Amino acid sequence: MIGTIAEFSVVPVGAGISLSPFVAECLRIVRASGLRHQLTPMGTVLEGDGERVMATIMLCHSRMLQMGDRVFTSIKIDDRRDRPVDMEGKVRSVQERLAKG
Amino acid sequence: MIGTIAEFSVVPVGAGISLSPFVAECLRIVRASGLRHQLTPMGTVLEGDGERVMATIMLCHSRMLQMGDRVFTSIKIDDRRDRPVDMEGKVRSVQERLAKG
Amino acid sequence: MIGTIAEFSVVPVGAGISLSPFVAECLRIVRASGLRHQLTPMGTVLEGDGERVMATIMLCHSRMLQMGDRVFTSIKIDDRRDRPVDMEGKVRSVQERLAKG
Amino acid sequence: MIGTIAEFSVVPVGAGISLSPFVAECLRIVRASGLRHQLTPMGTVLEGDGERVMATIMLCHSRMLQMGDRVFTSIKIDDRRDRPVDMEGKVRSVQERLAKG
Repeated sequence: MIGTIAEFSVVPVGAGISLSPFVAECLRIVRASGLRHQLTPMGTVLEGDGERVMATIMLCHSRMLQMGDRVFTSIKIDDRRDRPVDMEGKVRSVQERLAKG
Repeated sequence: MIGTIAEFSVVPVGAGISLSPFVAECLRIVRASGLRHQLTPMGTVLEGDGERVMATIMLCHSRMLQMGDRVFTSIKIDDRRDRPVDMEGKVRSVQERLAKG
Repeated sequence: MIGTIAEFSVVPVGAGISLSPFVAECLRIVRASGLRHQLTPMGTVLEGDGERVMATIMLCHSRMLQMGDRVFTSIKIDDRRDRPVDMEGKVRSVQERLAKG
Repeated sequence: MIGTIAEFSVVPVGAGISLSPFVAECLRIVRASGLRHQLTPMGTVLEGDGERVMATIMLCHSRMLQMGDRVFTSIKIDDRRDRPVDMEGKVRSVQERLAKG
């Protein structure tokens, strides 16, 4: 199966300046999804079946709206059908090129 | 009902430098959805029920993958639950502030 | 001269749920820049010399940090060198395709 | 000094389906900048003085336009002035919350 890689971030508005309680709650939802994922300084990257990836992101978005009145969610999806990719493979292919100089 | 406002853009990769055939196809899907929308120079803004908005965006994304092997889709969602908003209201509230000086 | 088209949005965090005072302040800065621009429901689109476009966006970003302690700024740049483009031309080329069916 | 954290990604259009040669070239520029950085599956995160961070991203963007005719660059900036932050600190504060349950 060829998976989807997507990154998302949530920015609750009017909920104080610290966002880590919100991001932690998203991470709990992401972990419960069973999807492969990676937390970065600017978002969370998910990998897997496209529908499950999007459903998990929207579950996080809905949860944020229970925790506060307004939320901005950004999503970037990289989808390709020509060959399988995974999160590590994307980083590795860049690093291999750099190593070759 | 309080609606969701979201903007999305698609960037097919490896499909030539002109993207308007792809954006036009997305617009056909958006029109068929019946959702209120606005085409901007950098994306398409949708307004309405959150699930329908996201389903329409993902329909466009899937269609792009039928037209080409790789696509980057970006989505920004602005969702608030404290009061109703619409696309025109967001722009108007900024313009009213500017008019007051 | 071939210009850059870019869209940006600012989300001040911890500054209350209404963002229109912040967006209005950005619009004042954008107007003072003299750059062609368009306010959309999800951001502001600028067109012109790439360095001036980015300088104007970063001026808005800096101003937001004077008005509040934390801000998320998102920028999308579409730059092409093969032929001139402008904001209206991008929208028009999609609409012409749609009109043809 | 309180630094800026920003993530960017470049998507050259009309340049083939594999983007790793382009991302590798950006990484060379980022390394030469001396800024702290992290390559993720969906972008590159930079940390440091705001002006240097943005100058480095725009250097990558300009270089992409030498390698191809059209490029989409996305940038997300998280800037806060209330206390120092770094890339690792952002991830750690989320993980600490998760560990507490």
